Amino acid sequence: MLSRLSPKNYAVVGCRFGSTIASSEPTGPEMHTAVPGPKSKALTDRMSPLHNTASIRCFVDFEKSFGNYMISSLPLGYNHPDLVKAAASPKFLTSLVSRPALGSFPRTDFSEGLQEALTDVAPKGLKQVQTMLCGTSANENAIKQAFIWHMRQKRGDKPPDQLALDSCMKQQQPGTPHLSVLGFDGAFHGRSLCNLSVTRSKAIPKVDIPAFDWPIAKFPRYKYPLEKYKSYNDQQDKDCLADVEAKILEWNAKKHDVAALIVEPIQAEGGDFYGSPAFFQGLRDITKKHNIVFIVDEVQTGGGATGTGDMWAHSHWNLSTPPDMVTFSKKMLTGGYFYADHLRINESYRIYNTWVGDPTKLFLLQEVVKVIKRDGLLQKNIEVGKEFQKQLHQLQNSHPNKLSNARGLATFAAIDFATAEMRDKLLTDATNNGLHCGGCGPQSLRFRPSLVYEKKHIDLTFEILDKTIKNL
Amino acid sequence: MLSRLSPKNYAVVGCRFGSTIASSEPTGPEMHTAVPGPKSKALTDRMSPLHNTASIRCFVDFEKSFGNYMISSLPLGYNHPDLVKAAASPKFLTSLVSRPALGSFPRTDFSEGLQEALTDVAPKGLKQVQTMLCGTSANENAIKQAFIWHMRQKRGDKPPDQLALDSCMKQQQPGTPHLSVLGFDGAFHGRSLCNLSVTRSKAIPKVDIPAFDWPIAKFPRYKYPLEKYKSYNDQQDKDCLADVEAKILEWNAKKHDVAALIVEPIQAEGGDFYGSPAFFQGLRDITKKHNIVFIVDEVQTGGGATGTGDMWAHSHWNLSTPPDMVTFSKKMLTGGYFYADHLRINESYRIYNTWVGDPTKLFLLQEVVKVIKRDGLLQKNIEVGKEFQKQLHQLQNSHPNKLSNARGLATFAAIDFATAEMRDKLLTDATNNGLHCGGCGPQSLRFRPSLVYEKKHIDLTFEILDKTIKNL
Repeated sequence: MLSRLSPKNYAVVGCRFGSTIASSEPTGPEMHTAVPGPKSKALTDRMSPLHNTASIRCFVDFEKSFGNYMISSLPLGYNHPDLVKAAASPKFLTSLVSRPALGSFPRTDFSEGLQEALTDVAPKGLKQVQTMLCGTSANENAIKQAFIWHMRQKRGDKPPDQLALDSCMKQQQPGTPHLSVLGFDGAFHGRSLCNLSVTRSKAIPKVDIPAFDWPIAKFPRYKYPLEKYKSYNDQQDKDCLADVEAKILEWNAKKHDVAALIVEPIQAEGGDFYGSPAFFQGLRDITKKHNIVFIVDEVQTGGGATGTGDMWAHSHWNLSTPPDMVTFSKKMLTGGYFYADHLRINESYRIYNTWVGDPTKLFLLQEVVKVIKRDGLLQKNIEVGKEFQKQLHQLQNSHPNKLSNARGLATFAAIDFATAEMRDKLLTDATNNGLHCGGCGPQSLRFRPSLVYEKKHIDLTFEILDKTIKNL
Repeated sequence: MLSRLSPKNYAVVGCRFGSTIASSEPTGPEMHTAVPGPKSKALTDRMSPLHNTASIRCFVDFEKSFGNYMISSLPLGYNHPDLVKAAASPKFLTSLVSRPALGSFPRTDFSEGLQEALTDVAPKGLKQVQTMLCGTSANENAIKQAFIWHMRQKRGDKPPDQLALDSCMKQQQPGTPHLSVLGFDGAFHGRSLCNLSVTRSKAIPKVDIPAFDWPIAKFPRYKYPLEKYKSYNDQQDKDCLADVEAKILEWNAKKHDVAALIVEPIQAEGGDFYGSPAFFQGLRDITKKHNIVFIVDEVQTGGGATGTGDMWAHSHWNLSTPPDMVTFSKKMLTGGYFYADHLRINESYRIYNTWVGDPTKLFLLQEVVKVIKRDGLLQKNIEVGKEFQKQLHQLQNSHPNKLSNARGLATFAAIDFATAEMRDKLLTDATNNGLHCGGCGPQSLRFRPSLVYEKKHIDLTFEILDKTIKNL
């Protein structure tokens, strides 16, 4: 979250100059230039003839970065010493240089990695796991597995028969079925054509791209503070659940059966919209009733930063039975999904590809989990999260005309600005004041710090924000 | 390609026992047990409660592996010393531990990596490159970029207007257009729902999965030897090209315009089916005429093993103008695609995701390219390929009742067995005789050796094959 620019004008955080890889964190940010600096601009100019550079914010000297930093997909910040040490071992070197086709020829230490990195931190009730490369492939393959299970039920719990095998080669029914997935307004599940068909966060990823005609239901839009608007918010839950059930009946009646429902615990990319435990309990009940696979997309929320004391935001819900599938990536470093026993496919080569993930990412997560356990970081996140929420609400109270809807779970949080322009100016100004931060939705500022983010970083964060917002 | 089992009964190739990471290749295979051995079986039993194991053939001790080996997606074999050395550098350690979001915050050495790993070995005429994580995301994003370009042309070379942006959020036209991609019978382009819609290699990846209704045209099925069946084969080209044009007109008439055509230089997964330069020249002409983006999928063929003297199989074709896009992954280590200047998108966040590839893979390719240049491996592949084809045809002549259709470009090759059962038995028996190999299509044996495969390995390969086939 906190930035520091090196004398060379790249963006750097926590650098200790002189060492080859940075090994300690500085006390605070120090800026030498506005972002992007002259060196970043020169590198963009160099890269532009080769590769699209439209989204680049700045170049970063990662060898000089350490600790807390600006992007949101690393669980322990930059160049954590335990991870740097592990990465130099023969296990990592050979995983990198001699990458195995994990689905057919896994490494001998792969099962141990699965156990320690994933199974040991699995969501309650889900014992099966499938590794993948990224969040998009995690969601897409979870959806595929739900389709396969749905059709298997239709065949009386049997694998595909000859008719299915023959007809799918002509893309005709029954082998190529008309099935659908239910998603939500405001959701983001990735950028493949399948995942975009259940994505409604913003137009830019979707425009000009063909899509499947799948149902989209309403997701709650609460008013804050929650306790003040309880009856309004309860009504949101009821309306949205009624819409979900109506959409299921509508698509089933069209003979495009809803095979799966996919939902984020927090609509993160869409603007940090929350659902209540009651809403998600309702989804669990509706999916059970209609025999629909209930997929929880924890690609952005998974990793331990939502104050549940485990790795999963959905642990807040107290469901009657667990979700059927939970997908992950980003802070989990490897993509993949956990799933319930009944969804297991025992035929080969159905959920499969050349790599089926990347052992370097799995082994890195294995080390991360060791550090999380040793340093008690999930418990720490609960404490740090309380302080974070306190300071976030104080900030809102200090700027009542500019800020509203402070919300979050532990350090996974957001706040709204009065206008999109104000939010965008804040992002630029805060970066130039040493706090790299990101937006979500049309006018929200989002917070996605790592698990090594502590009280002293909170103080720095809100000091910079307060100063920057005063000058907006 | 050649296997060696360690005393522990994992599969290992080229191991030198005692050192931490293997550093030289043995003179030949040595088998201690049938495959999978008892240790592999025990590891499968251990993994099975956690993760699907249906496709696993054996576990492999990659730290003890070296040189030539059994799977087909590594360009320089196992634990190449130059790569092991590079992987221990701060550049690789920090890339692994502090993975950047390349689309927004690339490393300072990323442009140099792009230049040396990709631009310097780009297909002739294609100067732009986009990195991705894998072959599936390479193909899917190439297709998305083609859709975006198609719609841009329809708007008079303009970015999306408000109507497009608004309508795509409801998945209505014009923002969510009805467009299609033309693929081929026998093709394989990956396992996402989009890519499966243009895939027709086998039923197993497709069955039970919904698909887009996109056109599929005939791909040539030649008789061998090519020169003996010249007029039959020429007619195949003509029939297939006519079918391509008919399908384009049919889908355009349905108002599901064909925006892109995707084709492999060799239908590899489908069974090693080849198209002639004349066929591909015809495709280039038809796509030009109908303003269709011509995508060449070199995910399996790219990497320098087809004897062109560069990294690309399609260099054999002598096209009038280059393809519009060339996708890659596997032996290129990073996924991605090259594309023509006119397809460049200058709006941000359209072709984008959290990671947009993986710098460890790009930097590894950068080292691989250095070794390929230093050791003249592309030129060597032409020579080694001639010897390989000679011995492949000798093998066919020695077993005329069992083998047919020997075919290939340099060391990228295949041969057919009389029946599927015979091919499957060969795969098992050859593995147990020390030669790991793979099938493709219903009854073909495929060859995908790395660029460090030499004359002595060819001799070993065909010695084992000859012995094994005699006993079939």
